[in-house]
Amino acid sequence: MSNPLQTVQQLVQAIRPADAEVMQQARARQAQLTKPAGSLGLLEDISVRLAGVFGTPQPHPRGVAVIVAAGDHGVTAEGVSAYPPEVTPAMVANFLAETPWGSGGAAVNAIARTVGARVYVADAGVNADLPAHPRLVAASIRRGTRNLRVEAALTPEETEAAVLAGAALARQAIHDGADLLVPGEMGIGNTTPASAISARMLGLDVAAVTGRGTGVDDVTLARKREVISDALKRQGSAAADPLGVLADLGGLEIAFMLGVMLEAAAQRRAIVLDGFVEGSAALIGVALAPALGDYLFAAGECAEIGHAAQLAHLGLTPMFRLGLRLGEGTGGVLAAPLLLSAAATLREMQTFAEASVPEGN
Amino acid sequence: MSNPLQTVQQLVQAIRPADAEVMQQARARQAQLTKPAGSLGLLEDISVRLAGVFGTPQPHPRGVAVIVAAGDHGVTAEGVSAYPPEVTPAMVANFLAETPWGSGGAAVNAIARTVGARVYVADAGVNADLPAHPRLVAASIRRGTRNLRVEAALTPEETEAAVLAGAALARQAIHDGADLLVPGEMGIGNTTPASAISARMLGLDVAAVTGRGTGVDDVTLARKREVISDALKRQGSAAADPLGVLADLGGLEIAFMLGVMLEAAAQRRAIVLDGFVEGSAALIGVALAPALGDYLFAAGECAEIGHAAQLAHLGLTPMFRLGLRLGEGTGGVLAAPLLLSAAATLREMQTFAEASVPEGN
Repeated sequence: MSNPLQTVQQLVQAIRPADAEVMQQARARQAQLTKPAGSLGLLEDISVRLAGVFGTPQPHPRGVAVIVAAGDHGVTAEGVSAYPPEVTPAMVANFLAETPWGSGGAAVNAIARTVGARVYVADAGVNADLPAHPRLVAASIRRGTRNLRVEAALTPEETEAAVLAGAALARQAIHDGADLLVPGEMGIGNTTPASAISARMLGLDVAAVTGRGTGVDDVTLARKREVISDALKRQGSAAADPLGVLADLGGLEIAFMLGVMLEAAAQRRAIVLDGFVEGSAALIGVALAPALGDYLFAAGECAEIGHAAQLAHLGLTPMFRLGLRLGEGTGGVLAAPLLLSAAATLREMQTFAEASVPEGN
Repeated sequence: MSNPLQTVQQLVQAIRPADAEVMQQARARQAQLTKPAGSLGLLEDISVRLAGVFGTPQPHPRGVAVIVAAGDHGVTAEGVSAYPPEVTPAMVANFLAETPWGSGGAAVNAIARTVGARVYVADAGVNADLPAHPRLVAASIRRGTRNLRVEAALTPEETEAAVLAGAALARQAIHDGADLLVPGEMGIGNTTPASAISARMLGLDVAAVTGRGTGVDDVTLARKREVISDALKRQGSAAADPLGVLADLGGLEIAFMLGVMLEAAAQRRAIVLDGFVEGSAALIGVALAPALGDYLFAAGECAEIGHAAQLAHLGLTPMFRLGLRLGEGTGGVLAAPLLLSAAATLREMQTFAEASVPEGN
């Protein structure tokens, strides 16, 4: 295991761009493989980007890890979610439950078992006494954030601690063999800070980045937008630096996922982005370290308003459009076989010359 | 292994609709699983359809098989492809080549190895002496089709034989454990019969269903459209019955894939459709047996013009949009983990009650 970096700033400075020369070699190799040029579409671009991440024109990523960070949100006091906050600890228990199929009875567990991904579950700041569990990473910074409508959700120190806790768990997952990391989240109310962060970082109207989350009705949606607008007008919310924005608008699991991404990029691993909440962490990330973008891969376009704007800002093209809006990293885990397959084409396909296949005109 | 059905008509009659009652149970179960209702989007619909295919609200499909059928086309004499016909046998050799990674150096091999699918390779009518190979299924009906511009590509007897050969290999794959079957193809020139079949079966203009295939230039595309128009004006090409259309416009590998689909549906297995050539076989299939549609799942929307019209006619929503246009069943194999994951949610997720998670409002 590499030496842990002690500050977010150190992490950020450790992130180098993907290898452009290797990407050029990979692009040239794709053109020589036994298929019509470009016929694998987006998969070819992904393969080339993976070559750049892993520093070889024939990349061989193996382990897939999804890190599900859970956190609560003071802003749920404003009634911004269709679900009560008690769902957060209950879902943590569900992520860890023993079932006839193995550990975990949530969607991310079922999908991860299917595609062979390892699931890590972290308490990044749930507002409950979670019973100790051998598979629960206790990394709570505080019991939920403050209400971002009326005050800063987190202090700078809390934010930094949550980011570093995420980095530490990513370090563990990489040590355990992960080459593809999927940051995932669970936190009732967390599309509210995600929308606030997106509005701030993208310079967009609140309505353009605030959707129904888990499925709120029209009245709740209007209230949610008002709450976010209030937060963005509040004193102190105009912080210029990205970590200041994150602290002010919050999300302990969002900060934790940011740490996962920064550590993964610093260690040159690929990061598969799931949905809108993950995207808000990525917006903070690329503002801190533009080279982080080289390590990000978009799974699907999720159904939440504002996700497309996030992806456009990040310069990412989603692989599928299943209309997912669950979170937990489910989309990222579903995308993992596509990424592994893209890498396999560069690695395992024969060239026209090797296979003695005549080339086209 | 079940008793082989001796005629295409017998196969068609053996296809029953998916189980509507089980689908209703599966739909009700999805609403009780620990996630916001509908938050898994298209994956939920797929899971319900898989329940109907496998006749249980908690389906457990396992093995994935891709059956790559190769055939040649007399119409290549008209210069409709960017590649010479010698590519067909060369690619068959590539599907079977020993590489450091295992058997097969083509895209479908690399992707199948990644997702754990088994590859079957069949000579359905290649115009070459293919050396015997333990993994090559010798099922050639004739050495390529006749030139569909000037005469019927196949006789009714040849067509029936090719369909039954495909059914026989699907039967083998199912016997070997396949629950998801991916029909795939290789055949230089085969988007020409696929476009002709699509124009005829969908009642669309040739231009609306005739694209660049492996990547022909403007001049060749214009010639290809002219060739198809000529074929559709030729005497005999107005056959009313679907098998007559297939015989007239041809494609031994298209007929073979039709046989794979009919057998899979008759044995209640799921069929994952890759691209445009596979789609043309499916159009013949649903005309013969409307219930076949219950067993079809669309992988991605491929880049070939006309694929969207095929999917609309089949009532299928594609899972991803990677811009694939390779064939070989590559898209279908890439989609397999998504289908397996969809089934896993129904099977392995806990309900709100089981997990003691409060429901939303």
